[in-house]
Amino acid sequence: MEKSHVQRDWEQREMIENVTVNIKKIADFLNKFELSTRYRLAKLNERLSTLERQMEYLEAAAKSVAE
Amino acid sequence: MEKSHVQRDWEQREMIENVTVNIKKIADFLNKFELSTRYRLAKLNERLSTLERQMEYLEAAAKSVAE
Amino acid sequence: MEKSHVQRDWEQREMIENVTVNIKKIADFLNKFELSTRYRLAKLNERLSTLERQMEYLEAAAKSVAE
Repeated sequence: MEKSHVQRDWEQREMIENVTVNIKKIADFLNKFELSTRYRLAKLNERLSTLERQMEYLEAAAKSVAE
Repeated sequence: MEKSHVQRDWEQREMIENVTVNIKKIADFLNKFELSTRYRLAKLNERLSTLERQMEYLEAAAKSVAE
Repeated sequence: MEKSHVQRDWEQREMIENVTVNIKKIADFLNKFELSTRYRLAKLNERLSTLERQMEYLEAAAKSVAE
């Protein structure tokens, strides 16, 4: 049975709305993911910087002991 | 030449399918990327924690030597 | 008032184009984000490896002092 134009129109409208909802979901997920990644990278970066300072300090201390 | 309704209908259907395939590709890529990022962040986190423990130990040792 | 087929056709065409533009934006953002994340993870990894080598060296030095 042939579908009417109106039926096909509705189907396409629904498909487009479905697609739009999925794009919005992806964009939302991406935003949250980017924010959380940025946050976790910044935290790791901070801990690394602290360790690097401590390491420099210890190395200097070790050198002065060795001299 | 004017396109028939049926032709336009098919074109739109194809465009929507194309769009749906691309959304699926993006979602798949995003899932893999999120998993791999989470994994790599966890690995870095682990190595950092190990270093932090070693640093604490060394600093305590250095302090006891200095006293 | 009923919309003509041509009007509905144009509306749907516009919605699909809109959707396509948004998918392209997401894909572009995702590519840049993935590249920058990969770069930042590689940098953190490098700094961690340097610290791990320094730590090994210091621990060996500390051990030889303790003996």
